[in-house]
Amino acid sequence: MRVLAFLDGTLAEPGAPHIQVADLGLLRGDGVFETILVAGGEPRELGPHLDRLARSASMLDLPEPDAAAWERAVRLVIDNWPGDGEIAVKLVYTRGLEGDPKAAPTAFALGLEIDPKVLRARAEGVAAVTLDRGIDPGLAERAPWLLLGAKSLSYGVNMAALREADRRGASDVIFTATDGSVLEGPTATVVLVRGRTLYTPPANVGILPGTTQAAVYRGAERAGFTAKIESLTVDDLHSGDGLFLASSVRKLTRVHTLDGKVLPDATALHRELSAAYEAVYA
Amino acid sequence: MRVLAFLDGTLAEPGAPHIQVADLGLLRGDGVFETILVAGGEPRELGPHLDRLARSASMLDLPEPDAAAWERAVRLVIDNWPGDGEIAVKLVYTRGLEGDPKAAPTAFALGLEIDPKVLRARAEGVAAVTLDRGIDPGLAERAPWLLLGAKSLSYGVNMAALREADRRGASDVIFTATDGSVLEGPTATVVLVRGRTLYTPPANVGILPGTTQAAVYRGAERAGFTAKIESLTVDDLHSGDGLFLASSVRKLTRVHTLDGKVLPDATALHRELSAAYEAVYA
Repeated sequence: MRVLAFLDGTLAEPGAPHIQVADLGLLRGDGVFETILVAGGEPRELGPHLDRLARSASMLDLPEPDAAAWERAVRLVIDNWPGDGEIAVKLVYTRGLEGDPKAAPTAFALGLEIDPKVLRARAEGVAAVTLDRGIDPGLAERAPWLLLGAKSLSYGVNMAALREADRRGASDVIFTATDGSVLEGPTATVVLVRGRTLYTPPANVGILPGTTQAAVYRGAERAGFTAKIESLTVDDLHSGDGLFLASSVRKLTRVHTLDGKVLPDATALHRELSAAYEAVYA
Repeated sequence: MRVLAFLDGTLAEPGAPHIQVADLGLLRGDGVFETILVAGGEPRELGPHLDRLARSASMLDLPEPDAAAWERAVRLVIDNWPGDGEIAVKLVYTRGLEGDPKAAPTAFALGLEIDPKVLRARAEGVAAVTLDRGIDPGLAERAPWLLLGAKSLSYGVNMAALREADRRGASDVIFTATDGSVLEGPTATVVLVRGRTLYTPPANVGILPGTTQAAVYRGAERAGFTAKIESLTVDDLHSGDGLFLASSVRKLTRVHTLDGKVLPDATALHRELSAAYEAVYA
């Protein structure tokens, strides 16, 4: 099941061709995106997702996205989704057609079912591996043309990293910087818990500010946890009480094994933090 | 004017929509490409381009491209191109549709006119700026999941670098590694000439092996030049007798200004090397 809405408010058949071969999103990965979870008919963190879309667009010198129009497109997908199960809604915003400097951006919202693999990861957790991302923590601020921290359509490396994880018998990745510090997952934010304190690395090292991580932080603080933004090492990840990957669609996913080593059982902690996160939307 | 041929041998209207929104080439920049120059009705360096397509595909774990089918698609574009001017033919090969592990790749050849900006760059040369690419020379071999040296559709950074050049009053970029060594342009190979010797950096530092640079090397050696693969610094670029960017469509383009400093006049050298390059196809 899929539902497709263009930004102009038209619905379209998702399985039909709608994109020209000369779209720069396709030819150059030149565009930005967001993925939003819809639960109980309501998009979660819609405002932060649209803010981040605008931030990514600005980093790529794309025209400022029309937040109201995007919100209408998301609602249109939701209103036309049969049943009331969870949906992942992808927002895609490209530079439009190659060779036309005045080309209008290509912009659509695509509603997708939640992948069964995602449901399994939520329930059972994942094994992850650390992989060198080859960047130093100062690079993002020094070299903005590298688009570190933009959610761009150029996600080839993120996908290749997940295939590398698969080759190593895992299903997710935690990227590290050249100084050994922890960055992020290819599609998720790292959250470490030690005692009653949550830690996530600062976004200015060139990672995506996490919308779900922020929601988890809000929920956890209400539930009595302390939440900190702090640089982490891989040793920290091994010595904590719980390691998690936060992303819209997978919510807070437990990492049970890191680089082949089984981590301390964080099932109870996962249950508590997941409840705190869900309470944000109750 | 555009001509579009799919890999199955069908011609299609290039201005019509042919791609689904769920194509992974669009959603994730997950695919590879090549751009081939056709001059006098003949594709230049077709074999090396198809070899490099196969190499990029392998780095992305895509199915091995069918070289004979790609060659037929290129010929189909050429045969259906009106007139006998030069053409740029883009080959695009994506992972196909999201959510379908057995999805067939999306594969097409798109013939495009040569952009007037390219013709101007060929004739007049370009101003370039050096930009930090943030990688160290050993990274490509240490971390193959970063896809350094693959010609992937995730070219957002390459496009952002060109926009940064524009902001700095230039029109092209030479990327540098963290140790200050020269890498490549976002869409071209760096060739430095000192006396009668050509230099280009080794591909194992994480840059694309240049098909046009290789052709220039063949032509230059026949014309009595020596051609070397050697690491270069930015100081080297400033102190040579001629600095060039080699790419299929722009051929050998002269860099007349680097980081705002006018380089020694290499007009005569450019003329000689361009003739040597053209002689490869005579």
